[in-house]
Amino acid sequence: MTTPDFPQYDAKTASGLQGSAVAAGGLATFLAIEHIEVGAGSLHARIAVRDDLLTPFGNLHRGVLAALCDHVLGTVLYPVIARGAWAATTEFKINYLAAVTTGVLDARAQIISLTKRTAVVRIDVENEGRLACAAQGTVLVVAPKQ
Amino acid sequence: MTTPDFPQYDAKTASGLQGSAVAAGGLATFLAIEHIEVGAGSLHARIAVRDDLLTPFGNLHRGVLAALCDHVLGTVLYPVIARGAWAATTEFKINYLAAVTTGVLDARAQIISLTKRTAVVRIDVENEGRLACAAQGTVLVVAPKQ
Amino acid sequence: MTTPDFPQYDAKTASGLQGSAVAAGGLATFLAIEHIEVGAGSLHARIAVRDDLLTPFGNLHRGVLAALCDHVLGTVLYPVIARGAWAATTEFKINYLAAVTTGVLDARAQIISLTKRTAVVRIDVENEGRLACAAQGTVLVVAPKQ
Amino acid sequence: MTTPDFPQYDAKTASGLQGSAVAAGGLATFLAIEHIEVGAGSLHARIAVRDDLLTPFGNLHRGVLAALCDHVLGTVLYPVIARGAWAATTEFKINYLAAVTTGVLDARAQIISLTKRTAVVRIDVENEGRLACAAQGTVLVVAPKQ
Repeated sequence: MTTPDFPQYDAKTASGLQGSAVAAGGLATFLAIEHIEVGAGSLHARIAVRDDLLTPFGNLHRGVLAALCDHVLGTVLYPVIARGAWAATTEFKINYLAAVTTGVLDARAQIISLTKRTAVVRIDVENEGRLACAAQGTVLVVAPKQ
Repeated sequence: MTTPDFPQYDAKTASGLQGSAVAAGGLATFLAIEHIEVGAGSLHARIAVRDDLLTPFGNLHRGVLAALCDHVLGTVLYPVIARGAWAATTEFKINYLAAVTTGVLDARAQIISLTKRTAVVRIDVENEGRLACAAQGTVLVVAPKQ
Repeated sequence: MTTPDFPQYDAKTASGLQGSAVAAGGLATFLAIEHIEVGAGSLHARIAVRDDLLTPFGNLHRGVLAALCDHVLGTVLYPVIARGAWAATTEFKINYLAAVTTGVLDARAQIISLTKRTAVVRIDVENEGRLACAAQGTVLVVAPKQ
Repeated sequence: MTTPDFPQYDAKTASGLQGSAVAAGGLATFLAIEHIEVGAGSLHARIAVRDDLLTPFGNLHRGVLAALCDHVLGTVLYPVIARGAWAATTEFKINYLAAVTTGVLDARAQIISLTKRTAVVRIDVENEGRLACAAQGTVLVVAPKQ
């Protein structure tokens, strides 16, 4: 597949995003999202499945997967847009592919299109060696105030 | 718009879902989802926006909206399917329409199509008198074990 | 549901869109799309199902429904944006709800959110008294060249 | 990315699908879809852009891209499901990434999840060396009548 270039890639921003996503606020803290690898146009983030994310039936609440996809969809943009610009998730679509009960969730986001104003991103989330969900969405890039 | 019939509507199940969604597990508890009105093919649920759901920029983390839509998408099915059947969200799409900073989120789900095996649901989430997001998705109805 | 206002509604543009959509080019001509009613933020368009739109199994090719939704998704914008502005469909999602074999397709599009730069639209397509598909998508409004 | 196995892959069915998609009926004939390469879980199909697929502004009608994605979304299933089974597209989402004015459209579909009853497929459409659109959708696999 043809992939876009990322001329504005800023390794320092990428490096600053490594590690816990606690800076993203309450939901990211509750989910304990960790940024494993932040690249040029790509992001690998992880959540450990734990008991208080399960439904009473013992399955992961699928809202956790939706929230994780939403999180990486916006975050993957920061290293490749201007400093001070803002990445606003505008829409996404998610297909749930397998029930999750244990282990970790490995979310990998890849920017497949990038213009000055918008990006389109694909996301895979793996769990226990298979796909747990797949998503595709749009991010609006809002330029920094002059 | 043409809407489906709900011959299996069970008012007792609907009534049992009224109130706090705490039974749905950890994420629903963290978000403090409340079921305001449970009808035949419709569900009105609410979350109060609070500080620990905001990003450091003061906006609601959009993952909260995604998780709320996911929650009502599956829950709206229970009063209109057989007792013991299971509603598995298989996919949805969400458009974010306005930034949220305060107030409550009023999510209204409406089943627009229902067959023995699948349902399609539309969801509106209002905040402070305008739409915060709109979603549409599919739920797989898994029959109870014989 | 809260709906947006349409301060730029231009009845003359709406009136000019009434009737055959042949001006939209080859695919709209092939499908013989007809604009039945063009309103402020809404559009009702119709296609007659005919033999050469069916698959060898006698069902309407679902691509016809997808193309019809795509068509109304962009067209519904013209009466409510500035003259000379351009409505570029950027994404949509469609759920197919019933097989179609005969009759007409009645597509109704409704703008549910409108800002200076983007609109979100919902679409229902009815056939023989039931929903054939439901869609939701985004349109980018490109301002006229100065 | 983890990909599914295709134990039912039938090279003869795949081979039978090679070439013109005229057997799929009127819309596929109008669009002149050609199946370039049919594999186990993958399909490469092509449309040549021609004048009567353009809008009066000289751009490809985006409904052509939607109909092409819909076509490959279902067709990619046939070589990997039981003979006599039927692949019913149930939903998809498409992001338009670039305007198309000339050349060919190369659609590549890849099954990313396959169970007995459903498959999830991703599709890229390239034109003139860049992505024209990206889609993701669900297909219901209906078993052959006994």
